[in-house]
Amino acid sequence: MKLSEIAEKLGCQLVGDGAVEILRVRGIDQATRGDLAFIANRKYLAHLKGTKASAVILGLEHPETPLPNLRSVNPYLTFAKAIELFYQAPLPPRGIDPTAVISPRAVIGKNPSVGAYVVIGDDVHIGDNVTLYPHVCIYTGVRMGNGCVVHAQTVLREFVQIGDRVIFQNGVIIGGDGFGFAKQDDDTLYKIVQSGTVIIEDDVEIGSHSTVDRATIGATVIKRGAKIDNLVQIGHGSTVGEHNLLAAQVGLAGSTVLESHVTLAGQVGCAGHLTIREHAVVTAQSGVGGNIDAHAIVSGSPTMDNLVWRKVIAGLPRLPDLLRRVRQLEVEIKAIKTHRTPDTVTDQKDEERNNA
Amino acid sequence: MKLSEIAEKLGCQLVGDGAVEILRVRGIDQATRGDLAFIANRKYLAHLKGTKASAVILGLEHPETPLPNLRSVNPYLTFAKAIELFYQAPLPPRGIDPTAVISPRAVIGKNPSVGAYVVIGDDVHIGDNVTLYPHVCIYTGVRMGNGCVVHAQTVLREFVQIGDRVIFQNGVIIGGDGFGFAKQDDDTLYKIVQSGTVIIEDDVEIGSHSTVDRATIGATVIKRGAKIDNLVQIGHGSTVGEHNLLAAQVGLAGSTVLESHVTLAGQVGCAGHLTIREHAVVTAQSGVGGNIDAHAIVSGSPTMDNLVWRKVIAGLPRLPDLLRRVRQLEVEIKAIKTHRTPDTVTDQKDEERNNA
Amino acid sequence: MKLSEIAEKLGCQLVGDGAVEILRVRGIDQATRGDLAFIANRKYLAHLKGTKASAVILGLEHPETPLPNLRSVNPYLTFAKAIELFYQAPLPPRGIDPTAVISPRAVIGKNPSVGAYVVIGDDVHIGDNVTLYPHVCIYTGVRMGNGCVVHAQTVLREFVQIGDRVIFQNGVIIGGDGFGFAKQDDDTLYKIVQSGTVIIEDDVEIGSHSTVDRATIGATVIKRGAKIDNLVQIGHGSTVGEHNLLAAQVGLAGSTVLESHVTLAGQVGCAGHLTIREHAVVTAQSGVGGNIDAHAIVSGSPTMDNLVWRKVIAGLPRLPDLLRRVRQLEVEIKAIKTHRTPDTVTDQKDEERNNA
Repeated sequence: MKLSEIAEKLGCQLVGDGAVEILRVRGIDQATRGDLAFIANRKYLAHLKGTKASAVILGLEHPETPLPNLRSVNPYLTFAKAIELFYQAPLPPRGIDPTAVISPRAVIGKNPSVGAYVVIGDDVHIGDNVTLYPHVCIYTGVRMGNGCVVHAQTVLREFVQIGDRVIFQNGVIIGGDGFGFAKQDDDTLYKIVQSGTVIIEDDVEIGSHSTVDRATIGATVIKRGAKIDNLVQIGHGSTVGEHNLLAAQVGLAGSTVLESHVTLAGQVGCAGHLTIREHAVVTAQSGVGGNIDAHAIVSGSPTMDNLVWRKVIAGLPRLPDLLRRVRQLEVEIKAIKTHRTPDTVTDQKDEERNNA
Repeated sequence: MKLSEIAEKLGCQLVGDGAVEILRVRGIDQATRGDLAFIANRKYLAHLKGTKASAVILGLEHPETPLPNLRSVNPYLTFAKAIELFYQAPLPPRGIDPTAVISPRAVIGKNPSVGAYVVIGDDVHIGDNVTLYPHVCIYTGVRMGNGCVVHAQTVLREFVQIGDRVIFQNGVIIGGDGFGFAKQDDDTLYKIVQSGTVIIEDDVEIGSHSTVDRATIGATVIKRGAKIDNLVQIGHGSTVGEHNLLAAQVGLAGSTVLESHVTLAGQVGCAGHLTIREHAVVTAQSGVGGNIDAHAIVSGSPTMDNLVWRKVIAGLPRLPDLLRRVRQLEVEIKAIKTHRTPDTVTDQKDEERNNA
Repeated sequence: MKLSEIAEKLGCQLVGDGAVEILRVRGIDQATRGDLAFIANRKYLAHLKGTKASAVILGLEHPETPLPNLRSVNPYLTFAKAIELFYQAPLPPRGIDPTAVISPRAVIGKNPSVGAYVVIGDDVHIGDNVTLYPHVCIYTGVRMGNGCVVHAQTVLREFVQIGDRVIFQNGVIIGGDGFGFAKQDDDTLYKIVQSGTVIIEDDVEIGSHSTVDRATIGATVIKRGAKIDNLVQIGHGSTVGEHNLLAAQVGLAGSTVLESHVTLAGQVGCAGHLTIREHAVVTAQSGVGGNIDAHAIVSGSPTMDNLVWRKVIAGLPRLPDLLRRVRQLEVEIKAIKTHRTPDTVTDQKDEERNNA
């Protein structure tokens, strides 16, 4: 595809030779002839000089380059859209595979694609243009909107509600029983029936093997536009806010509330019964034990302000040395005091404890 | 349902108007007309005044209230049982779905519910009143007791043994190969055949996508009444004790032994070849590297006593300031020593290191 | 089986009575009559005296014992091979189950075992002697070599490439979409098509419920001989090196590069766009935020040298006491200065801050 054609399709300004032939999109450090590279982050500008790419997507503010280039307000988004010009995932055939087991009381909308060995329970309502890959299992009473894509092995448990254009990668479990038990007099555990449900709003995507538990009472909610990575656990009664980003292996205990535009990096854990306010960012492996303010960036387990945390972790390797230095100071002070005021009695017990 | 009827069914003392109509159970902070709320924790007593609930479950020791109420020794347990009066999960039909593939050498007890596309291998023995949801896969030689519920996509590998009334949520894997490799002379890894099995005792529940690996030799054991949340990893040869509670994303390396009534909070990791004694509690994200005493509460990675840990994490954000203060003290001491004893030679090298 | 026969089969030197009858292999601390125990680690030598084992596998350098024994350069490897003399996992029948749904455009090699309800898509090429357990789902265009074993519920997504003798435990997801989104002007997230693939080389093993995401562009690669445990997340565009060992619940963010013979212990997380060089070891629960040198052993979140980290964690519980001691030193220095130089003005502001 000619660069000029790409410029037109993506609505970018073309600078330089539009006749150059583009075969694919590639990172600037790996790009070769025929590649359209991109720079979304200023720190990659240094690669501009040495790159073998045939053309590059740049921000409006980036410097001039002899390389043919496309200018965009949001070069990362333009890169994302450029990929679509060169690749489309294979679409499964429309229609219902004869091996699918579908309850006569289920309703499926127009133009479905239902794969082999899909199971759909009683009273399920599914919208139009939905794709269900093989081995998807939908329990009784599920509601699903239009345009959803559900990959193989995903399970939607009884009564969960799914919006429009929701994407489930493989093996997602929506609506498994929440982890609720009441201690009995003999210290054994009594299972609390999880009578609530899960509500997943429009344009949500959930990664492979993530689990969203049904609420004890009421609903666990994943709000509009939230994106959840693989192997994430959403505890019963939690709310994931609009346009949240939850990276892989994050875990939310029960009744965690995330407001809109919250970002949780990989392996973050949240204790339950707390709120993380809008636009807050929690860095990787952090442990959230209390409420987090809007727009805060926090780190550590338990979390503290990210700037404080950076100083703390810079100081941590010096802790053993610090212990030695304080012991030295104590010795010196004692020497000074002894020397100057020979009548002073040092607190022997305290010293012993310090030496312990 | 009338409150008086609920009181009778749950064996509670009724205080106030028993004729009030109850439609469902709800948390005290969200409850409205028709709701039966509950208070299990004293700190929610403050909500009693403002609640719009029609009635409330209280402990015997809680104060009087004008609201109609049910008194219970264990209000949380009473709440759990109250839910059952208003909700029951839909039961799958009894019988064997014609699409199930069952070995002629398998034996299934009375009154089964076997869903679509279930696969049952040779020499499997299953007890009475068992429910297998769609896509469950049971390998050769598995033994399962009575009254088990196995949700969709769960896999029971060869020869594993399951007790009575065990509940598997979705996508549980019991008996996958343990992670065992022997290093060869050329530094490559030789797979060690995992010849052992998994034994799961009565009344265990295991959450979605948790994995319990088979032992290299002998058995990985999940003892009676243990409850395991989602995405938990139980390494080969480990023992999870009676009535343990393991929260989501916990990981046990091989040959970890948990005694009875142990609680591991979310994302806890345990190195292998260690024992956590009865009634110990490990708080969230902690890393257990050695044995833990009975009844201990431990935190941190690696773990320390929870009370010590609380002080440590309170002190951590002050570490950068502490480094500065110790440097200041060193300067001051040097000044005092120089001023008083001008013949003293300061250790220049030491100082440079401190400044590093 | 007689010990002499085992010695011959395993190519070990026999010391003592070769006629002793061996029924199975067992750990030295649990072994009883009829058991062949083993000692791979010097610290278990103490068990030699009290063991009831009938024989034992020892290293060449281990001391003499009256117990009949087999001598090996690598006793752990010999133990691994001894297990195979007593146990073999049941083999599923060869052939293609009539319930498998296989595209007429798929090609399957010689001597396959294809289980019930397996689904194989268009243009899939599978080599010889492959075993696919029930409910395996293979999307369009997948390539797989010879001798692979794929356990139930595993999913291979479109176009992924699998080498020879690869083993997938249950519910492995290869080639799910990477977690890539571009922020739009209104702060919502635009899905970036994941146009790349996953390449898994020969002799790799991947544990239950692990997920390996497809690259945005190019490929996520798992190199020859790497072994990955359960519930591991491999982000898009990452490379896992030859003969790596990744323990359970490890997570790699996008574009992480692991060179050969790297070991990541349980629950380790790696930020993306970094390299861990050959033979490095990262201990459990650590968080890797930058490049790691070859042969390094690192710990902590973020990581530091393991020897430093050991001192840091030994010092951490003393931090609260350290804070108290430094405060005490400040008081004493102030007293000395005041006493000696009454004209000195202490910095009041600084002190207030210290007290804060």
